[in-house]
Amino acid sequence: MKVAYQDLQHKFEKILLQHNFSAVKAALCSKIFAQNSLDGVYSHGLNRFPVFIDLVKNGLVKPEAEPEILSENGALQVWDGYLAPGIYNASLAMKAATDLAKTNGIGCVSIKNTNHWMRGGTYGWQAADAGCIGICFTNTIANVPPWGGKEPRLGNNPLVIAVPKTGGHLVLDMAVSQYSYGKLQEHELNGQLLPYPGGYDEAGNLTTDAAAIRKTERALPIGLWKGSGLSLMLDVVLTALSGGKSTSAITSAGKEAGVSQTFIAIYQPDLHQNLIEQIIAFTKTSEPVEPNGQIFYPGEKTLITRNENLAKGIPVNEEIWKQVQQL
Amino acid sequence: MKVAYQDLQHKFEKILLQHNFSAVKAALCSKIFAQNSLDGVYSHGLNRFPVFIDLVKNGLVKPEAEPEILSENGALQVWDGYLAPGIYNASLAMKAATDLAKTNGIGCVSIKNTNHWMRGGTYGWQAADAGCIGICFTNTIANVPPWGGKEPRLGNNPLVIAVPKTGGHLVLDMAVSQYSYGKLQEHELNGQLLPYPGGYDEAGNLTTDAAAIRKTERALPIGLWKGSGLSLMLDVVLTALSGGKSTSAITSAGKEAGVSQTFIAIYQPDLHQNLIEQIIAFTKTSEPVEPNGQIFYPGEKTLITRNENLAKGIPVNEEIWKQVQQL
Repeated sequence: MKVAYQDLQHKFEKILLQHNFSAVKAALCSKIFAQNSLDGVYSHGLNRFPVFIDLVKNGLVKPEAEPEILSENGALQVWDGYLAPGIYNASLAMKAATDLAKTNGIGCVSIKNTNHWMRGGTYGWQAADAGCIGICFTNTIANVPPWGGKEPRLGNNPLVIAVPKTGGHLVLDMAVSQYSYGKLQEHELNGQLLPYPGGYDEAGNLTTDAAAIRKTERALPIGLWKGSGLSLMLDVVLTALSGGKSTSAITSAGKEAGVSQTFIAIYQPDLHQNLIEQIIAFTKTSEPVEPNGQIFYPGEKTLITRNENLAKGIPVNEEIWKQVQQL
Repeated sequence: MKVAYQDLQHKFEKILLQHNFSAVKAALCSKIFAQNSLDGVYSHGLNRFPVFIDLVKNGLVKPEAEPEILSENGALQVWDGYLAPGIYNASLAMKAATDLAKTNGIGCVSIKNTNHWMRGGTYGWQAADAGCIGICFTNTIANVPPWGGKEPRLGNNPLVIAVPKTGGHLVLDMAVSQYSYGKLQEHELNGQLLPYPGGYDEAGNLTTDAAAIRKTERALPIGLWKGSGLSLMLDVVLTALSGGKSTSAITSAGKEAGVSQTFIAIYQPDLHQNLIEQIIAFTKTSEPVEPNGQIFYPGEKTLITRNENLAKGIPVNEEIWKQVQQL
């Protein structure tokens, strides 16, 4: 079943307005939820919307809250998000970072007490649309074991890097686990095995069964000890800058709320588009592993999916779409 | 065989002075080469020194050159490194980034036409010693295939993230290949197999044979498609900011010279040391996979090795140490 972008966005907006979202917040958040599905990140679009409404109902996401600047030193700001919707806080924080970058060349906003930003790539596309290089990352509840350990003590802490490009930005949006929990959920929902092992089952063996990994919470970090180290460092940077909740504190609280995020933007008028095109062209000359295989740059498939879904409608999980109609 | 840190440093210094290095440059570069071995990164200390001298002799590294600021916009600078020793350029660039951060909260220096910085961690420790969070990365010659391709078109582009900590900084220094080429060389030199597959052999199979991977140059990116995307994005950011050589241009030139690097520093007086300690303590509570296993934070083992090598001398590859004596 397919649904038009506008229908998805209007439905989300109507529901948000019924849950104490201001007109401005409902418009922004519904747009981003619908865009996430439009861009093919269904796990953080429609599929996550009912969970998001539950968080609002439970008071973990506070629709009325507004973020505030706690401290400011040149191009570096620290904010308190007061548990406002993560999408809203993150959009404002990246906007502030790009504004700082336009004045200072580079800018950084760290925010504490915020909430899940859904798709991190959203804020990468936002920075690139503003003509800036964007780098942002968030912490999460513990869901990846540190290298050498069995029990999850690290978040999968998504990292986003975006660079503006004429004809379609480059946007990398990756969690430091081999598969994001959104992706695991998607495979479980669709009854599909993962193409590569993504973590451990209850017997301690590597598995491609997404449900088993969601059960043990022993997701595999990218690059084994490297992803483990990267996850820890992102959490340390986030916490050191914001003074907010670390993965440790989020996990102790038992609910993934009040997370910490950092947004860095860099502005330089000439980003050497011709050299970026050279890099992409060179990368694509690698002989494909599969006979008709293709090599993509980060963000390239997103744009293909976006255009396809705009033209033909967004494929939706009917059960979840029904559930949303009844919210 | 073991050699004292001072003996290693003095030997390097003497040789550099004989190769047109100024007293200042010889002191700095010899110190960093010796420190790399002291910290256990033998592949980028003594073991790389003869190769470095060859590069000086071949004119790819220019001892007399001085870097220059090409453009300056607030806290963002672009430099030309004029092929000066990579260690020297990188030290000055990170120093400038930390100075910018002390004034502006955050600072960024991108440099083109520089050379191999040896151990990237050096500049992470430097930033942390200056009280700053440090993030830096470099591109390299193509040595990793992009996801979906067989031939190397991406660099292993090391990424460094450092955070100051009382009693020992946190410093992550990772190439985006599962094993750095330095580590592969070390295993080949010692005749050891890799503990995990690190790339493909000539038959296209995953292998733990470092020599075979060095031959095919099909090193495995961390996290499969994720490391491939991360490598590309780092190269794009480096090239877009500096206007310098991308992995594509370095590879076309045939020699790993004139690379591009970016140094970001963030300064905030209070980095919440208590919260950093909490993160580390929590991470270490994960039940170890091995009965007596231990979980380390990035940089922790470095400090242990440093102290051990300071006390007992630095273990050296005798063949290479002899070779250096004859330089």
